[in-house]
Amino acid sequence: MKYFLLPLILGGICWGQGGDECKPSSLNIPGAPYPCVHADRRVTFRVAAPDAQKVQVRLGGAHDMTKGADGLWMVTIPPQVVGFHYYTIVVDGASMADPATRTFFGSGWDNSGIEIPEPDADAAYYAPKDVPHGQVSQRWYYSKVTGKWRRCYVYTPSEYEANSRTRYPVLYLLHGWGENEQGWHTQGHMDFIMDNLIAAKKAKPMIVVMDNLNAVKPGEDASLYAARGTIARMTAPAPAPPGGGRGGFPSNWGTAFTEMMLTDLVPMVERTYRALPGRENRAMAGLSMGGMQSFMTVLGNMDKFAYLGGFSGSSGGRGGFDPKTSNNGVFADAEAFNKKIKVLFLGIGSVEGPGTKTFSEALISAGIHNVYFESPGTAHEWLTWRRCLNDFAPRLFN
Amino acid sequence: MKYFLLPLILGGICWGQGGDECKPSSLNIPGAPYPCVHADRRVTFRVAAPDAQKVQVRLGGAHDMTKGADGLWMVTIPPQVVGFHYYTIVVDGASMADPATRTFFGSGWDNSGIEIPEPDADAAYYAPKDVPHGQVSQRWYYSKVTGKWRRCYVYTPSEYEANSRTRYPVLYLLHGWGENEQGWHTQGHMDFIMDNLIAAKKAKPMIVVMDNLNAVKPGEDASLYAARGTIARMTAPAPAPPGGGRGGFPSNWGTAFTEMMLTDLVPMVERTYRALPGRENRAMAGLSMGGMQSFMTVLGNMDKFAYLGGFSGSSGGRGGFDPKTSNNGVFADAEAFNKKIKVLFLGIGSVEGPGTKTFSEALISAGIHNVYFESPGTAHEWLTWRRCLNDFAPRLFN
Repeated sequence: MKYFLLPLILGGICWGQGGDECKPSSLNIPGAPYPCVHADRRVTFRVAAPDAQKVQVRLGGAHDMTKGADGLWMVTIPPQVVGFHYYTIVVDGASMADPATRTFFGSGWDNSGIEIPEPDADAAYYAPKDVPHGQVSQRWYYSKVTGKWRRCYVYTPSEYEANSRTRYPVLYLLHGWGENEQGWHTQGHMDFIMDNLIAAKKAKPMIVVMDNLNAVKPGEDASLYAARGTIARMTAPAPAPPGGGRGGFPSNWGTAFTEMMLTDLVPMVERTYRALPGRENRAMAGLSMGGMQSFMTVLGNMDKFAYLGGFSGSSGGRGGFDPKTSNNGVFADAEAFNKKIKVLFLGIGSVEGPGTKTFSEALISAGIHNVYFESPGTAHEWLTWRRCLNDFAPRLFN
Repeated sequence: MKYFLLPLILGGICWGQGGDECKPSSLNIPGAPYPCVHADRRVTFRVAAPDAQKVQVRLGGAHDMTKGADGLWMVTIPPQVVGFHYYTIVVDGASMADPATRTFFGSGWDNSGIEIPEPDADAAYYAPKDVPHGQVSQRWYYSKVTGKWRRCYVYTPSEYEANSRTRYPVLYLLHGWGENEQGWHTQGHMDFIMDNLIAAKKAKPMIVVMDNLNAVKPGEDASLYAARGTIARMTAPAPAPPGGGRGGFPSNWGTAFTEMMLTDLVPMVERTYRALPGRENRAMAGLSMGGMQSFMTVLGNMDKFAYLGGFSGSSGGRGGFDPKTSNNGVFADAEAFNKKIKVLFLGIGSVEGPGTKTFSEALISAGIHNVYFESPGTAHEWLTWRRCLNDFAPRLFN
């Protein structure tokens, strides 16, 4: 197997580090020595801000940097959890992305990112290997429901072009709040995860469609989906949010996306790609807010989907669960539900709290089959969701 | 025709502006009101930097911002040229991307970008319209020459999937210094340009392959391709450049890319896609450093390519042109050259200087047919190159 490091590819360049134990993050711009990750997972940051009075790194908490004689500010922060983390540099009160890293769309803007590497064996499932590679394609389509053109990304397995008569099942896969349709293949490495699973015959070859969960009908208020906090903090006071802030969901939340998906997206996919039709060939999953959207869409349209996944997000957390009445009573007849939904998957990071486990157990008590997956040691971050996808995808379309 | 604004798509959101004449740039993050562009093409920027002493916008020159009572810094700068411009915010000496815009990889890092809109009629050729859309796909492949995995993007025309037995000619299209394989479809809107040309039957349906021009063999010094200036200014002193700085090209510059392209990329493309074989079905073009690379690759391998384009970059500017000896004498026999190279295209922005026109005229004096294209009023920027592609693509494969 040929493994390779992302920095070698993204710019084709890697600075030699010699005997220095601190290795540049794989997400750095080509040639940038900082931020770097120590063997014990401490991280050293360096930023040029010659005239600044105070410079901080915000990763988890705020870490004050110290100015050296050369005008460069540095700090080494305590060991970090493995995986991908967004982080921000604050220069005299201005929050900005670190210019030394590639940027990643999260919290509604292009933020800096750092990857704390796992041991090779643990990371192998999302590492690019010498196996056949599928492709991720940008696809534009017009939505009658929103009255706008939209962009999605579509993963097709490596064999898709050679097998020009074969049709494939489809997984619809959503990002989280403040992210977009690029998240799964950029932060999530979903392409390598699927390539590796399919090459090892652990998952069926499938099409994966990654859309943007933000959808409003003409005239509806789009501001729920804008990153008001980001905008207020960084560039200007933002308009007052409807319904009381980020956590305040208007009563019609998610309905436009579901309608758009069923009216525009699914038909476009099944018209454009060699997709297998019918509910048993459609799965839907998402992370965080995308998990909530997936539960809403699938549980409201069980005639159209047979597989459902929530990664750090489902239908829990919005009032107590009552199997008789929650989600319009879809769980009331457990036998009927279990026949229809072939896999109900609930994934979570172990440090995210017990809500998902409690929900899974309540479902089991109500006779609803489900898979509970816990990612050890990770929080509400992309490594949790990479692991969720790696566990979920093999369960589909069997 | 349905036209649409990019901000409506990229995040699905557009803030209502009411009677304000200053319209948010189409490249802003969803919901961000600044930067905004006035009707006369002045631009107003706003950044939150409550504790800073000095904040500037660098776009062309440096523009001092003024702090308001609310801690927000603002400036309105004079009318700008239409098209895409990179720009930077400097907070107390720290150069960073404006958090209010999406970022774009240029000068070796993810910088801010602003689009100064052209009148609709002028911009129509790169606007998304209600025509069949091709797709841009991310493709990984292993290079034996560099010993690394590489990523390219491949545009396939809308009809590609339906016409499952048709083969297509291929244009290889390169970015410029400090950019990468994402530039043409992100900054350049090449997908909309090609969609519109093909729909109007102005250009033949073709495959377009966009690779990264940075390539070194194992053990070679990659530092030419790193953005040393960026790294030094923003994050840390960079190693001394080989050969005397950005302008100093080592004697073997470009040879690894050409070898990689002929050994790895072209065979991968012709094995993976339904590409027509042979020199008359292969074109190569690039912008700036990518134009230099295209001239080097094609003029050194005229048995493999029949079309060549340089957009603000070719083989000029590196010593005087002598038709008898330049480029290893390929221009010495004009008749033979004209038979082989069906289109030799030289494009330039009108404010970039006379070098390209002089080169074109010298070629004509030497009997070498070529097309000289000048983009009125634009500099060494993406609008020049969008216009070049729009003029160049219809000339191919006829």
